[in-house]
Amino acid sequence: MRVDISSVDKSIYIYDGTYPNYGHFIKVSKILYDGDTKFQHITVADADNLGRILFLDYDFNVSTMMEAFYHEPMAHIPIGIVHNPKRVLVIGGGDFGLASHVLKHKNLESVDMCELDEGVANVSREFFPWANICEKDERFTLYIGDGFDFLKNKEDGYYDVIIVDSTDPFAKASILISDEFFDNVKRTLKDGGALMQIISDALFYGETWNDVMPKLTKRFSSVNPLFVPIPFYATGSWGLCLSLKGIDKLPIDKITDNYLSSIDSLKTMTADLVRGWFSLPSYIKELIYGK
Amino acid sequence: MRVDISSVDKSIYIYDGTYPNYGHFIKVSKILYDGDTKFQHITVADADNLGRILFLDYDFNVSTMMEAFYHEPMAHIPIGIVHNPKRVLVIGGGDFGLASHVLKHKNLESVDMCELDEGVANVSREFFPWANICEKDERFTLYIGDGFDFLKNKEDGYYDVIIVDSTDPFAKASILISDEFFDNVKRTLKDGGALMQIISDALFYGETWNDVMPKLTKRFSSVNPLFVPIPFYATGSWGLCLSLKGIDKLPIDKITDNYLSSIDSLKTMTADLVRGWFSLPSYIKELIYGK
Repeated sequence: MRVDISSVDKSIYIYDGTYPNYGHFIKVSKILYDGDTKFQHITVADADNLGRILFLDYDFNVSTMMEAFYHEPMAHIPIGIVHNPKRVLVIGGGDFGLASHVLKHKNLESVDMCELDEGVANVSREFFPWANICEKDERFTLYIGDGFDFLKNKEDGYYDVIIVDSTDPFAKASILISDEFFDNVKRTLKDGGALMQIISDALFYGETWNDVMPKLTKRFSSVNPLFVPIPFYATGSWGLCLSLKGIDKLPIDKITDNYLSSIDSLKTMTADLVRGWFSLPSYIKELIYGK
Repeated sequence: MRVDISSVDKSIYIYDGTYPNYGHFIKVSKILYDGDTKFQHITVADADNLGRILFLDYDFNVSTMMEAFYHEPMAHIPIGIVHNPKRVLVIGGGDFGLASHVLKHKNLESVDMCELDEGVANVSREFFPWANICEKDERFTLYIGDGFDFLKNKEDGYYDVIIVDSTDPFAKASILISDEFFDNVKRTLKDGGALMQIISDALFYGETWNDVMPKLTKRFSSVNPLFVPIPFYATGSWGLCLSLKGIDKLPIDKITDNYLSSIDSLKTMTADLVRGWFSLPSYIKELIYGK
């Protein structure tokens, strides 16, 4: 049911096939880029009311209209939770969007980003605004390569915050939920550091959660799933997980409206919302922890 | 782009066309009912992983898998907020789902439901579980007719809680956001009573909010928009509004985990989540209040 769009240049529906029986179709007004990288198929298109959209392998990835709903929690929650953070690593995030939000925190000394697919970075430089924000900031360094290998070669206790902004952690990104990867995250985080990671939707991918949660709780002292509303993702919200090293209880009180108001142009977060995202109702608990 | 499904009985994608450039396609495994009422087209279908779905005019309306995400907040928030509620009116809600949740509150004396379309009620009796729960409860009365007229003829101060569970308040349901309707809601609510109403998504229907909010704030002493995550609605959340008569400030502290734990089989709510739903980030505030 995926649509071959290579020969079409406008007014087409692109199918987001994350789920077997269910999908989004988005009518785009203009396709700006459509091509293959070494790793995946990239499409950039404009759509009325939806802004400019990046599709990876025909799946909806990010758009200028909704990026803040996803990038703001990924960036500002771990940075607000960790005490006096200095060094942040973004794994994935090749559209530069997440790193551009991380860099709003002027107290950070360095923001590294390790993206597997140089093609995504190049296309993003041409069609999206975020690369420019990052690459003119001298605290930012882009590494092209495998995030798993990058971390393996990094010294102990180097990072305050590691954020994994991958495609869904199946298939090609499944190494980012492996035991060995989590071992290296824990090793390269300082004490009191945090891993923020995209996991999955709970309604259809409870199994992914059932796989990931024991791996995390075995290694981290505080493991905190949260569900964030993301318009245009298939079930309208997505599950992240914030894991802490050497801290027993999530210090949620650090995410105050005062902290949030210090962040430039914040769109999608309030302190009460963040507290709610970490509060899982029974239905979601059963899905992610198993019955 | 709407699909004519009248001649097909299985394995079909049904398009939810709420938005002009964007939609859901759902692959259903079996169509159980497909026909016209006096007011609209009804389809009932089963879909793998999604449960049994009711489509009205080909738009996704409710499914057995996700109904709690929508019905629980609609029912349990106003009933928890109002002091000692006795009489509840549901306008619309012809699938009986919302009323079945309202009836979980054993302290209520009567639950009236006024549904415009007897066809929806009849189809729901045959294919969904909720009608049976309602119709065996002697506190429940179904009225078939126009909710607007029903309320016009009701005495002053009769209801503690009025819940409007209509289709989106455009076109045929637009009377349910009219000045005259709100006048009658206010008149028929007791002092301290509450109106809970579905309004709209904010991302695409900011104009509806801009129209409704002044009408509500002119009449009610406390008007409280909230955004609830609803999987399979097009942007993944939907906007409701809780308006209070004769109470200046939303007593959100009444929605405690203790109150919620008293509700049988609650799936989707926690006290922190509810508090978060009422906390609007800047982006949503701008959309619904206008700039």
